[in-house]
Amino acid sequence: MEQHEVIKQIKKADRAIVEENFDTLIDIYTDDAILVIEPGRNAVGKDAIRKAFEAIAVYFKNGLQVSQRGIEVLESGNTALVLANTVISAPNMPEITRKATYVFNKDINGVWLCSIDNSYGHEIISKNV
Amino acid sequence: MEQHEVIKQIKKADRAIVEENFDTLIDIYTDDAILVIEPGRNAVGKDAIRKAFEAIAVYFKNGLQVSQRGIEVLESGNTALVLANTVISAPNMPEITRKATYVFNKDINGVWLCSIDNSYGHEIISKNV
Repeated sequence: MEQHEVIKQIKKADRAIVEENFDTLIDIYTDDAILVIEPGRNAVGKDAIRKAFEAIAVYFKNGLQVSQRGIEVLESGNTALVLANTVISAPNMPEITRKATYVFNKDINGVWLCSIDNSYGHEIISKNV
Repeated sequence: MEQHEVIKQIKKADRAIVEENFDTLIDIYTDDAILVIEPGRNAVGKDAIRKAFEAIAVYFKNGLQVSQRGIEVLESGNTALVLANTVISAPNMPEITRKATYVFNKDINGVWLCSIDNSYGHEIISKNV
């Protein structure tokens, strides 16, 4: 089965993160994209997202590994929601799996770009409700 | 704190589901919205979504209760991702909490409409990966 274009973009982003190829990585985001750095702390816009990924790379001793273990795409018009089991590890962190949520929008050229990158999924819901 | 317009729409939808007010409910969706009826089975478009909710109402003995226990909105341009703990019960079903994911798009009049309604969250990821 032909892989969804959104999944191809996510795999490209995963490779770019592992290779610390931030030019390629940032091209996958919309101009006003939002990245959840950790619950309660977000980066907005390409510059802020790039800086966040540079800091994350250093934090994880330049050995961050990212892959997807199970992924589904729900598409409606120019919007797609991705549910993914995102597996992360690093020299200073044992492997963890996050129930990640990503939103992509199709631009005028038909290219899917990430507008909302929340690898923490429901962890961002504050506990004081 | 002023409640996000998207949260107001979700609360309106919850009330409409409980009251079986399907005209109000369907107005909250985009024309090509997708609703996950159950993992692997989706309804696409207002007509199909309305029929799905009518069938769901009957299935739950016209006693479905829906509410949100913790909700967060991530917004980027005209797209918003909602992470919610959605609590559901019915006369023939004990209370369950789903880690729901919803996507809303702002239309040309500035009204937020639901384009992707996946109350099952990561449960839609198939096990054979």
